Amino acid sequence: MGLVVQKYGGSSVADAEGIKRVAKRIVEAKKNGHQVVVVVSAMGDTTDELIDLAEQVSPMPSGREFDMLLTAGERISMALLAMAIKNLGHSAQSFTGSQAGVITDSVHNKARIIDVTPGRIRTALDEGNIAIVAGFQGVSQDKKDITTLGRGGSDTTAVALAAALDAEVCEIYTDVDGVFTADPRVVKKAKKIDWIAFEDMLELAASGSKVLLHRCVEYARRYNIPIHVRSSFSGLQGTWVSSEPLVQKTQQQGDQKVEQAIISGVAHDTSEAKVTVVGVPDKPGEAASIFRAIADAEINIDMIVQNVSAATTGLTDISFTLPKTEGRKAIDALEKAKSVIGFESLRYDDQIGKISLVGAGMKTNPGVTAGFFEALTDAGVNIELISTSEIRISVVTRADDVNDAVRAVHTAFGLDSDSDEAVVYGGTGR
Amino acid sequence: MGLVVQKYGGSSVADAEGIKRVAKRIVEAKKNGHQVVVVVSAMGDTTDELIDLAEQVSPMPSGREFDMLLTAGERISMALLAMAIKNLGHSAQSFTGSQAGVITDSVHNKARIIDVTPGRIRTALDEGNIAIVAGFQGVSQDKKDITTLGRGGSDTTAVALAAALDAEVCEIYTDVDGVFTADPRVVKKAKKIDWIAFEDMLELAASGSKVLLHRCVEYARRYNIPIHVRSSFSGLQGTWVSSEPLVQKTQQQGDQKVEQAIISGVAHDTSEAKVTVVGVPDKPGEAASIFRAIADAEINIDMIVQNVSAATTGLTDISFTLPKTEGRKAIDALEKAKSVIGFESLRYDDQIGKISLVGAGMKTNPGVTAGFFEALTDAGVNIELISTSEIRISVVTRADDVNDAVRAVHTAFGLDSDSDEAVVYGGTGR
Repeated sequence: MGLVVQKYGGSSVADAEGIKRVAKRIVEAKKNGHQVVVVVSAMGDTTDELIDLAEQVSPMPSGREFDMLLTAGERISMALLAMAIKNLGHSAQSFTGSQAGVITDSVHNKARIIDVTPGRIRTALDEGNIAIVAGFQGVSQDKKDITTLGRGGSDTTAVALAAALDAEVCEIYTDVDGVFTADPRVVKKAKKIDWIAFEDMLELAASGSKVLLHRCVEYARRYNIPIHVRSSFSGLQGTWVSSEPLVQKTQQQGDQKVEQAIISGVAHDTSEAKVTVVGVPDKPGEAASIFRAIADAEINIDMIVQNVSAATTGLTDISFTLPKTEGRKAIDALEKAKSVIGFESLRYDDQIGKISLVGAGMKTNPGVTAGFFEALTDAGVNIELISTSEIRISVVTRADDVNDAVRAVHTAFGLDSDSDEAVVYGGTGR
Repeated sequence: MGLVVQKYGGSSVADAEGIKRVAKRIVEAKKNGHQVVVVVSAMGDTTDELIDLAEQVSPMPSGREFDMLLTAGERISMALLAMAIKNLGHSAQSFTGSQAGVITDSVHNKARIIDVTPGRIRTALDEGNIAIVAGFQGVSQDKKDITTLGRGGSDTTAVALAAALDAEVCEIYTDVDGVFTADPRVVKKAKKIDWIAFEDMLELAASGSKVLLHRCVEYARRYNIPIHVRSSFSGLQGTWVSSEPLVQKTQQQGDQKVEQAIISGVAHDTSEAKVTVVGVPDKPGEAASIFRAIADAEINIDMIVQNVSAATTGLTDISFTLPKTEGRKAIDALEKAKSVIGFESLRYDDQIGKISLVGAGMKTNPGVTAGFFEALTDAGVNIELISTSEIRISVVTRADDVNDAVRAVHTAFGLDSDSDEAVVYGGTGR
């Protein structure tokens, strides 16, 4: 029995009852012979309440002070959780990000972990304690200021600690049973995935799946730390995310070999908008000047598609997608660079949605792309943009079509829960 | 213009409006040319809410985790205050107790400050910042654990920082106008004291005055840091507490010499109970064995009085007062040691009150004691215990008599606000 890192999100510790429930589960793991490190988020709405307060005193709070403020949230939940564990007769100590050795860069509100030096955690474990660590926070290497890791940061804290402590597994406890083949709110027949490879999980996360964030999976892949995503409200096995299908000893089912599916799942995302730069001279350097303007405005973009230029005019259109929240900034940046770039006009469309099919099996199963387009055609969904990677196909459609499209694709690839096996598409194609 | 330490209590920063109001006042001091260090408590009821949460998860929370929990409170208020100041166009940085170099012993929930190493504060000031420091908290010297200083700890933080930074003055902002000659809720004609010596303030604090706590005044006296207690809701001069009457340059009144009064004030305290150990053999070592039993139970006591023993029995009674909250523990400790001590019975009385008259002038003005007792007699108040120091007389009465007694003494010593000077009592000495 080795070391386990468990991470509990805000919904799992939303109130005193939740904290006591989580404490029991942690003590179970300890009783089973594990060394246990727990990473915990702020309780329920605490972070939102603190953000509200900040907005009341200052419209543009400084990053340093904002981080100082927000990190109070985990301080509260971790201390309460340690108390609840002690109340069950087990010793526990809580540690801030700084105390736990989570060293970051100095980019407040979205710092990156540079190093983890968990000396105090190791000592606490060796003395027989359960160690409770504040998620989402660290301390900057140069100035020793408190930093936060941004959205989903607690998952990253957990994986980073698991790597630094050479943990057997990083368990991410949440309010759903695991990673599903599609969003269960959209697809009633979505199935829980038993195992998924890091690569597929990365693509799902990049395509709109919200269970795990991209950077957390990336970190786990780099250090080869298996992640087990599961519910804090049940004892069920969740989804294992790792480099290869593990033979898992599960409590319910004994030894179990999980096989890799051809298609892992269908993800969708309606948080993006599409910008089309119309009438761009089709000559070298044009695309570069457009995306230089966007990059200088510090905007991250997603898909890029360039149409074939019209032979008569020598002009082409370039479209790209980006988070809706960045739309205004992108338009401003492009308008400002209009004379340099030399385009005709801009079109902005925030009524789009993206549907992605993800699966490492695509590489060796030709016909997946064709099947994907056929399913969309049968559902009457019009495709506006297409983008592919080795293990993913994504299309942009009207936002209104997204739910129908996801359901159609999910059914077509045999992912619905009443069918037992994924359908393998033959035929030509990729 | 030197360095000023300002301390704001929880009622001054109870909400966003309060924080913005306090921010303006801090910026004023900065504009007046001071270097400004601000010590801030947790917002309004935050600490109570956190204690509630702790009680919900554990009936006996560990000291270490309790301190970790409570220190979230100042983290929130200090970050918000720094944001509010920045919003007014001035630079500010917030620091936890640990970051500010407040080093304590390891006694959780009531740690003592061992050292203050304010290197980061000094740097922040030198770079032109206003430094905001979390009150009430520090870090333990040996284990580097977060500690809290116990009730009134933020005042002590402020004075300790003022001493370490060699501040001109430590301003304690609160919701009253200063220190009064008696509790204004009891004595309508109580007067604000313009200046009071450390020694008198120490006696008032020990006798039930709640404006400043004893340990904070003690610290200020040791390092000779003048304290200015004043309201955060007005611009009025408050009460100066220092070693000798200062010539103060006040904003309202220009140069002003404050004279020392013979009597500083009347304090009262109804938080204590009286324990009487009845029928103690009047022989050496008896008192010692009683108070050893009390000390071993870690109970602090206040007054002690031993009656003359009755010649016929050779037995005596010993009475002492202690906080009501410690009453149960004291009785248990004495009952347990009954066979060793050899007393007859115990009497416990929590319906008592203490009235104290404080003033350095007592030393050189005979007759103060007589005047004190005469005033009580005239008010029909019966005296149960008497205890004196060089500059204080205290009596224990029925709790119901306390308010009448305080008013009678306040009037008799000319402290009422419509009389201009303290009455000097002649006659034979005290």
